Amino acid sequence: MGKLVYDFTEGNRDLRDLLGGKGANLAEMTNLGLPVPPGFVITTDACRHYLTAGSMPDGLDDEVTAHLSRLEEAMGRKLGDPADPLLVSVRSGAKFSMPGMMETVLNIGLSDESVLGLAKQAGNERFAWDSYRRLIQMFGKTVLGIEGEAFEHAIDAAKKAKGTKNDLDLDAADLSEIVETFKGIVREHAGRDFPQQPREQMDLAVGAVFQSWNADRAILYRRQERIPTDLGTAVNIVAMVFGNLGMDSGTGVAFTRDPGTGQQGVYGDYLQNAQGEDVVAGIRNTVPLQDLEGIDKAAYDQLMQIMQTLETHYRDLCDIEFTIERGKLWMLQTRVGKRTAAAAFRIATQLIAQGLIEDDEALTRVTGAQLAHLMFPRFDTSGGVNKIATGISASPGAAVGKVVFDSARAVELAARGEHVILVRRETNPDDLHGMIAAQGILTSRGGKTSHAAVVARGMGKTCVCGADELDVDSKAGRFTASGGVTVSEGDVISIDGSSGAVYLGEVPVSSSPVVRYFEGELDPASAEADELVQAVHQIMGHADARRRLGVYANADTGDDCARARRFGAAGVGLVRTEHMFLGERRQLVERLILADDDAARQSALDALEPLQRGDFTEILEAMDGLPVIIRLIDPPLHEFLPDLTDLSVKVALAGQDATDKDKKLLDAVRRLHEQNPMLGLRGVRLGLVIPGLFAMQVRAIAHAAADRKKAGGDPHPEIMIPLTAAVQEFEVAREEAEKVLAEVAAETGTHVRTLVGTMIEVPRAALTAGQIAQTAEFFSFGTNDLTQMTWGFSRDDVEGAFFSRYIDLGIFGVSPFETIDADGVGRLVSIAVEEGRAARPDLELGVCGEHGGDPESVHFFHKVGLDYVSCSPFRVPVARLEAGRAAVLTAEGGSDSR
Amino acid sequence: MGKLVYDFTEGNRDLRDLLGGKGANLAEMTNLGLPVPPGFVITTDACRHYLTAGSMPDGLDDEVTAHLSRLEEAMGRKLGDPADPLLVSVRSGAKFSMPGMMETVLNIGLSDESVLGLAKQAGNERFAWDSYRRLIQMFGKTVLGIEGEAFEHAIDAAKKAKGTKNDLDLDAADLSEIVETFKGIVREHAGRDFPQQPREQMDLAVGAVFQSWNADRAILYRRQERIPTDLGTAVNIVAMVFGNLGMDSGTGVAFTRDPGTGQQGVYGDYLQNAQGEDVVAGIRNTVPLQDLEGIDKAAYDQLMQIMQTLETHYRDLCDIEFTIERGKLWMLQTRVGKRTAAAAFRIATQLIAQGLIEDDEALTRVTGAQLAHLMFPRFDTSGGVNKIATGISASPGAAVGKVVFDSARAVELAARGEHVILVRRETNPDDLHGMIAAQGILTSRGGKTSHAAVVARGMGKTCVCGADELDVDSKAGRFTASGGVTVSEGDVISIDGSSGAVYLGEVPVSSSPVVRYFEGELDPASAEADELVQAVHQIMGHADARRRLGVYANADTGDDCARARRFGAAGVGLVRTEHMFLGERRQLVERLILADDDAARQSALDALEPLQRGDFTEILEAMDGLPVIIRLIDPPLHEFLPDLTDLSVKVALAGQDATDKDKKLLDAVRRLHEQNPMLGLRGVRLGLVIPGLFAMQVRAIAHAAADRKKAGGDPHPEIMIPLTAAVQEFEVAREEAEKVLAEVAAETGTHVRTLVGTMIEVPRAALTAGQIAQTAEFFSFGTNDLTQMTWGFSRDDVEGAFFSRYIDLGIFGVSPFETIDADGVGRLVSIAVEEGRAARPDLELGVCGEHGGDPESVHFFHKVGLDYVSCSPFRVPVARLEAGRAAVLTAEGGSDSR
Repeated sequence: MGKLVYDFTEGNRDLRDLLGGKGANLAEMTNLGLPVPPGFVITTDACRHYLTAGSMPDGLDDEVTAHLSRLEEAMGRKLGDPADPLLVSVRSGAKFSMPGMMETVLNIGLSDESVLGLAKQAGNERFAWDSYRRLIQMFGKTVLGIEGEAFEHAIDAAKKAKGTKNDLDLDAADLSEIVETFKGIVREHAGRDFPQQPREQMDLAVGAVFQSWNADRAILYRRQERIPTDLGTAVNIVAMVFGNLGMDSGTGVAFTRDPGTGQQGVYGDYLQNAQGEDVVAGIRNTVPLQDLEGIDKAAYDQLMQIMQTLETHYRDLCDIEFTIERGKLWMLQTRVGKRTAAAAFRIATQLIAQGLIEDDEALTRVTGAQLAHLMFPRFDTSGGVNKIATGISASPGAAVGKVVFDSARAVELAARGEHVILVRRETNPDDLHGMIAAQGILTSRGGKTSHAAVVARGMGKTCVCGADELDVDSKAGRFTASGGVTVSEGDVISIDGSSGAVYLGEVPVSSSPVVRYFEGELDPASAEADELVQAVHQIMGHADARRRLGVYANADTGDDCARARRFGAAGVGLVRTEHMFLGERRQLVERLILADDDAARQSALDALEPLQRGDFTEILEAMDGLPVIIRLIDPPLHEFLPDLTDLSVKVALAGQDATDKDKKLLDAVRRLHEQNPMLGLRGVRLGLVIPGLFAMQVRAIAHAAADRKKAGGDPHPEIMIPLTAAVQEFEVAREEAEKVLAEVAAETGTHVRTLVGTMIEVPRAALTAGQIAQTAEFFSFGTNDLTQMTWGFSRDDVEGAFFSRYIDLGIFGVSPFETIDADGVGRLVSIAVEEGRAARPDLELGVCGEHGGDPESVHFFHKVGLDYVSCSPFRVPVARLEAGRAAVLTAEGGSDSR
Repeated sequence: MGKLVYDFTEGNRDLRDLLGGKGANLAEMTNLGLPVPPGFVITTDACRHYLTAGSMPDGLDDEVTAHLSRLEEAMGRKLGDPADPLLVSVRSGAKFSMPGMMETVLNIGLSDESVLGLAKQAGNERFAWDSYRRLIQMFGKTVLGIEGEAFEHAIDAAKKAKGTKNDLDLDAADLSEIVETFKGIVREHAGRDFPQQPREQMDLAVGAVFQSWNADRAILYRRQERIPTDLGTAVNIVAMVFGNLGMDSGTGVAFTRDPGTGQQGVYGDYLQNAQGEDVVAGIRNTVPLQDLEGIDKAAYDQLMQIMQTLETHYRDLCDIEFTIERGKLWMLQTRVGKRTAAAAFRIATQLIAQGLIEDDEALTRVTGAQLAHLMFPRFDTSGGVNKIATGISASPGAAVGKVVFDSARAVELAARGEHVILVRRETNPDDLHGMIAAQGILTSRGGKTSHAAVVARGMGKTCVCGADELDVDSKAGRFTASGGVTVSEGDVISIDGSSGAVYLGEVPVSSSPVVRYFEGELDPASAEADELVQAVHQIMGHADARRRLGVYANADTGDDCARARRFGAAGVGLVRTEHMFLGERRQLVERLILADDDAARQSALDALEPLQRGDFTEILEAMDGLPVIIRLIDPPLHEFLPDLTDLSVKVALAGQDATDKDKKLLDAVRRLHEQNPMLGLRGVRLGLVIPGLFAMQVRAIAHAAADRKKAGGDPHPEIMIPLTAAVQEFEVAREEAEKVLAEVAAETGTHVRTLVGTMIEVPRAALTAGQIAQTAEFFSFGTNDLTQMTWGFSRDDVEGAFFSRYIDLGIFGVSPFETIDADGVGRLVSIAVEEGRAARPDLELGVCGEHGGDPESVHFFHKVGLDYVSCSPFRVPVARLEAGRAAVLTAEGGSDSR
């Protein structure tokens, strides 16, 4: 192995893989000349070795010793020196921030002896004993695995004995007694004494940090955040500085601009006479950072200066942790700061305006997920609201409805047209019907990968989960919030899936200004448009300029098409013609299915044709001049008939009185019933088996196109055959379509060039794409079906049944229906793209599955070389943005779509 | 293009691709010095050019002229010379024999003038006019597309006028009148005169033969016989010799040995004073070939001599067409003759004994399909039978049962335990239930690719189709056979799916001696064993010696395993543990599913464990010393519960009186109901979601193995995880299994090495096989599911719904569930083999889908490099034979599994 330890002076921010985020940024700040306590970093290489081999790598010990000596030299003190101890912190620091997940031990180097030396040197006995008890407590928890409660109880007991609630009221003698108690706790729980040797403390702490990479909560976090599991963490060993030496000391956090809005200004919190963990623990109240100016003007001014330096250097919002030790400012951490979606857009454009970044880089600073977030309707809380709880924001959206506690009730009320919110302690597969019926789901247990969260995201339904302040009593039909508010079945609540807020009563919902902008209702140049809308407008413009991928929409009506066009769609990638057979037209399909002979069947088809023709005319008009890919009917015909079980029960109950119509219908339903309709008589198979069905649709398309052309329009219809598995199927269907197109051209005297292509949604189609492309003019990947068949599971059946368990087990990081599975489904797409294009260089390639609007998937489709992605109209702006980002990131050689 | 025409002296039998089978063999006989009339062959290259370009290739005309001149020179006559005409036949001849499919025109060269010359030269006016009327008749049908009936009516009218039924009673004058009538028919139907120019006749006939390649019946035949569609046919132009010059002339067919049994001897038919077509038409009765000895001893002796030469030269049974013209013998055709399955085995071993072929070549002379044929039970017709019809042998087997005419009735009687034969004019998807319930299916319409035939073969059910002598009246509930026999519902019939015979009444069924041999009941060395059994024994021995592929069996009970072992299985490739949950044990599974809590669930599992342990002990005992691959439970649990619709109707009808048990059961059925169970909660998913289920099965396996080992046995269990799609799923399941295995090893003090591997039956598993092989110790391809998911159709739903239509449309040549689809499913298998083995060189690779017993598929699996195939016990001998053949054919560089 190479070098395993880096001094801060040896590193820089580009070494995040090796030094972790914290270490790399501490090194960067050190080299910028900022006041960083001296220290060094043990690399992630060492961690990975430790985790796989189970022992520290050879040579690490010597390297650490050498760096520690240099550190001692720089500080003029020795680690744990009884007379004047150097203390260090041992801090984890992985490549990606995992807040609160990983371990840290402060004040390493204190012992029964050196605590006295520290007291003497600091001139502060209380401080020394407080530091020592903190060491034993953190070491006990982190290194020795002792439950934190044991220590907390001891402190509480001491405070109780003293009659106080404030830590600061405990004096040196109290703290020295607590130290004795803590040592006893260690002995009892860990079966060993607290180690008095400072280097032993340090080495054990390093091992504990390494091990914390594989703690359950860290694994879960990485799974949720999709952080690779084999990165490992670095360890930072840093000379301690103390914010708890008195009222001239303190600790704080700061942001270079407002992470909520992007505004420049002074944002942060400060706490006097404290160490960092006190801020996090919230034991005492912090003051706003502005107040530091009054407390210590010099340190404040220096901090402002440093923040300016950092933002210019990092060219982005930074967040900072700092400590003031007796008036001396020390920087303990910086990193590019998290921010809200709105702030991300604002900051990106602000930085362009300041000349700090270029347009391309601005694109990498925002994400499609953030844009989607800005497009959700939002609660208008300006009229005042009654927030009764906050849970985890599991699936975005704003939902309002009556509380129900079981699924049957949810279905019942929803059937009456009521809006309901399903409230459960947690959901399970039995709740699926209720979840479908509800506007939103609220649970008191479970995190982002709980059943409720996973299923709701899959359904695109608003969900707040894990609102643990709520006590849900389903049997009694009520829940109580922590404030004592009781909410009963039928009461109205409002839940915000983006923030996790739960409000009592109905909160008005307003549409997002970003959507109003996309709709063309809000001119970004007008006074009404705020900075956010302007920022979105500016960045979208650049994304459009940069992207190679076209963005089309999936749309089934003229209205949908018009909206898609307003949202920036350059075509329609999928018209689902079966959507035109619903409502009143269902009876015509019923007639088609029940037809006893050719004449009856043809008569039903004849009745459908003018309706379809009207549909297509509307769509072609809305998309005049742009391509419109129309998929011929796909689902099994029995989907248009009543459910077998329902109808069987109805007929059985009616007995002798059952109508002839129902009996005939039941015969047909039985005859057409399929064990696995997803794998049944559908798509092209239907077209080849039911005479005249595809021909009717093609005729309607051809006539609609001719009508449009005669009316002076510019129609570009394309005919898409669904579910092709073999080139022979496609050829039979294409020949029939070409024949009808020629007939209509002859009849109308109008020729409209009409491509004929196919969905690639069956694994075999991808595997034989080279054959299919010899006769198909375009491919559109139906990644929903392709995912179902490649994995061998149907979304309807499995998403609720086991996906949350699978995500918990780490089998997926995210549902493969949400983000394309690159190894399996993606490999089929790659094969088909490569072999399809080899057979037909001008083959038009796109995707019309829901993945077309998923950010990470858009990057995949860009890389694999598709011509366009097609998604729901609402996702079109997201896809445009991500397509632009993909172009920029690929050009940079990057591949990270985060 | 190269040379387009070959003289017989220029060709040989290896040029079948170019000259077709007939031409190549005529050339071969010519070069052997046998008496073949001179002639030449127009190549298949010329045909392919004609069919794609629509015109004859450049240069063909000149080449034909040159060869024709040489032919005229050799014969000393000119084509169509009015004084002494040379006549020729124009005969099709493709690479693969397509009997009756393609066209032939005889007597080309006759005209109104030359008929007189021929009469004079032959000294036989009647002969000349008869030849002329034959030319016009064949030319009219073949070249001009006139319905044959028109000509036949004219002959019938002439015979009627003459008051005779025998063609020979028509004299020269009658025939000359018929010629006039025929010329009128041509003029009327074709709108042109019969061409008088001999070369025009010949050229038109050549074009007609080329076109006949694409006649509907030829296309259908090729599809059924799986002959590639782009081969084209050659055309043979041969000097005419005449069997109809008088009683010293004649024509016949002969076999070098009996095609039914392989016995050497004199087999064939002879017809005096006739041309070949008369034999086929069956207008007059032929005499046995032996009688020729009395008619013309010299010709007979020469023929016997030639047959001996041919068989020695071809080293196989040959069939022959010959003509005797005024005592001179002419050979018109020879080819390797078709034979029955029994004859194939006998002839192969006879030829070895004669030293004509080696063991390897003998293997290529028999097929697995023939062996399978020999293994079906057969009707014992020795007691006399009443055959009432013969149809097409669509799906082999011997079925006996009561006649029913509709599916509902079939289901009803079958439910009472009756055996039924479903008789329909033709079947359609509505008949599926009835087909499942019936022992066999009989239809009066449709061929080998009709719905009935395709579905029955898929089900492995006996079927005779297209028995067009039957008049089926379903409404009246009876059918009549051509002999006037009427069969009504409830009457018993017997149908032979191997011969197509339909018998009235019950014919006794006897098991095949070949099966008795495999069962070990018949010693091939004993007197009781006939030549066939000895031949099978000899050839199987050589197949076993030659094959590289292991052959395992799929078996679920100790008895099945024992039989598989007797049949030659070297292991069990698939134990379906769910088959152990049927019958009385179903209620335990029900208890498991209905369990309200962990304790109830565990108690149900605890009750199942000893039963499973007993099952496994039995199986491991039967397969002592051999590998036994046990698949953990695969189907969705609701398959063990009642049907949703049935139970819903039951509970609804019971109303208030519904039992609590039924209501609870209905709740569970509803909860577990899946839209697409094939794509639902099954396989490894079930194991990961239902705590303790897989562990129970693994524990039962481990204990059974320990029990066996303690009892002195040699158990080799392997644990197979079903439906893996991702390596992560497999890892979780494997870890649980390993844990249980270690626990049981510790408990029992007995360690049994137990491989843990996976099915590859989901496309994603094949696509990520490299990852999975890093942790799985073996792969077994589940090609049934893999076919379903790769094509995106479920066998249950589609085979009856559209497969026969798909076969008619040429989308498949054969159902992909019967023979593996090499381009799609096979490509996935290849990927997984290659990438799996790269990751783990000693990965054990096999297949346990039904394709494991399909001859053509076995060749595929041999080529792709699997270690073994596993199939039903009954198919084990077929797989052994085909595995041996695959090894021989691959070594020869051949790839043709026919």
